[in-house]
Amino acid sequence: MLYKKIKHIAIVGTGVIGSSWATLFLEKGLRVTATDIAAGAEQKLRNQIFQNAPNLSQELLTFEESLEEAVKNVQFVQENGSEQTDLKQELFRKLDSCTPPDVLLVSSSSGIIPSLLQTGTSYPERILLGHPFNPPHLIPLVEVCGGEHTSDEAVERTIEFYRSVGKKPIRLKKEIKGHVANRLQAALRQEAFYLVQQGVASAEDIDMAITEGPGLRWALPGPFVNLHLGGGSGGARHFLNHLGPAIQSWIKDLVRVTMNKDLIVMLSDEVGKMVQKKNLTA
Amino acid sequence: MLYKKIKHIAIVGTGVIGSSWATLFLEKGLRVTATDIAAGAEQKLRNQIFQNAPNLSQELLTFEESLEEAVKNVQFVQENGSEQTDLKQELFRKLDSCTPPDVLLVSSSSGIIPSLLQTGTSYPERILLGHPFNPPHLIPLVEVCGGEHTSDEAVERTIEFYRSVGKKPIRLKKEIKGHVANRLQAALRQEAFYLVQQGVASAEDIDMAITEGPGLRWALPGPFVNLHLGGGSGGARHFLNHLGPAIQSWIKDLVRVTMNKDLIVMLSDEVGKMVQKKNLTA
Repeated sequence: MLYKKIKHIAIVGTGVIGSSWATLFLEKGLRVTATDIAAGAEQKLRNQIFQNAPNLSQELLTFEESLEEAVKNVQFVQENGSEQTDLKQELFRKLDSCTPPDVLLVSSSSGIIPSLLQTGTSYPERILLGHPFNPPHLIPLVEVCGGEHTSDEAVERTIEFYRSVGKKPIRLKKEIKGHVANRLQAALRQEAFYLVQQGVASAEDIDMAITEGPGLRWALPGPFVNLHLGGGSGGARHFLNHLGPAIQSWIKDLVRVTMNKDLIVMLSDEVGKMVQKKNLTA
Repeated sequence: MLYKKIKHIAIVGTGVIGSSWATLFLEKGLRVTATDIAAGAEQKLRNQIFQNAPNLSQELLTFEESLEEAVKNVQFVQENGSEQTDLKQELFRKLDSCTPPDVLLVSSSSGIIPSLLQTGTSYPERILLGHPFNPPHLIPLVEVCGGEHTSDEAVERTIEFYRSVGKKPIRLKKEIKGHVANRLQAALRQEAFYLVQQGVASAEDIDMAITEGPGLRWALPGPFVNLHLGGGSGGARHFLNHLGPAIQSWIKDLVRVTMNKDLIVMLSDEVGKMVQKKNLTA
């Protein structure tokens, strides 16, 4: 399959994520056609794009009530519908049936693996995942992952396209619950929540343990480059051989947390205290 | 106990951490006396401080072979000895017996809780933990934690002192294995290692999943302020009520990793590939 040059994109579902994608694509000079089943969606979308980028021309943006109309002349669909598996599957079957097979169908889903979106479609090879980190017009990361039937070409073309609009795509070689970034974030959050739950330190101090410590390193070289730099001339191997037992002992002590009502109330109160103290408003 | 104004510090143990502490204290205009049992320690220390800060005068630095001499006129001891519990306990009993009770005895230990360092001492109330994130003259975080017998006053005085030299101290209200920052880092690393082990993504892409995604947020507001900001006008409570089930589902899927030889070799190789590709040297 030779995918065409991407000049016109359909945004299916124009909530927070869809509006942000639309903002990004318009900023890059691409034509965007949006669609959403909600009442008043076009006005909401235009308002949200204006909030995101007040000086951005919306001339290249059109809105269609009908899905079929919206995807008529596009080369790329960025789907941002409801996160219910059955609804999304139905949506992808529709998209598959009303677009030629050289249109890439890409889902923003954070919770559904792309193989599930390929069931019952005629051209599953162009169906894949392009999961952004919110909001996509500001945060560069996007996670690209094919399903069981996605072609390598479709994955590569999608990565290339995202790069061309300034995104930082990563490639998932396997489908996994939560993809990569949300899993890493969940791992960190779980421990942060546990430490508050156990009364080890305040939320404010735990934030500072990140922002004034390892966070200073994560935002620049990332955890793995840090393994390399931390090992001196011996690199990551030296670092891991030397500190492996210590890391193991800390890992062993990590505890699974349950996000029940009590914990949510406790965390909310703790953050509330900090927010008041720091005079933060949302 | 009225602790005296801190003008003169003893650095006990002058390896990487001790040298970095010495650099910081000298930079702040404080008098430093260092001691270490290793042969040639003074010259190594002076060389390391020169590497850390080539333009820093070392006039306020003295070195003593004997521990008793080194701590004679100081108000604060920053201990950076070997991480063996029995050796450190012996060292703290010695420090306790050869300093008046108004000298703060603070350990840089990453692995030993402060209560263990108080056994067999006469004035345990001034013995506590001041665990830096390496290197302390560059990374602001320091974790302050009292043991069973530490006085609140000693903890507060230590926090105040660290603040006065530009550190960002956090207060641990309970002793816990790995303290706070290393636990949070271990949680993130465990998941990063797991994703490489499972072949989900390359080390390079996992680094990017942090640096181009959540890392951009962690380095500035920290995970808990982000919960607040993420919830809009409803704050952290709204965020957690809304996304709690998703976070729970990701947490449930996190897997304990064992830092065995195979994993260390695999991770080292993977980082090695990235380092070559990126042309990084240690």
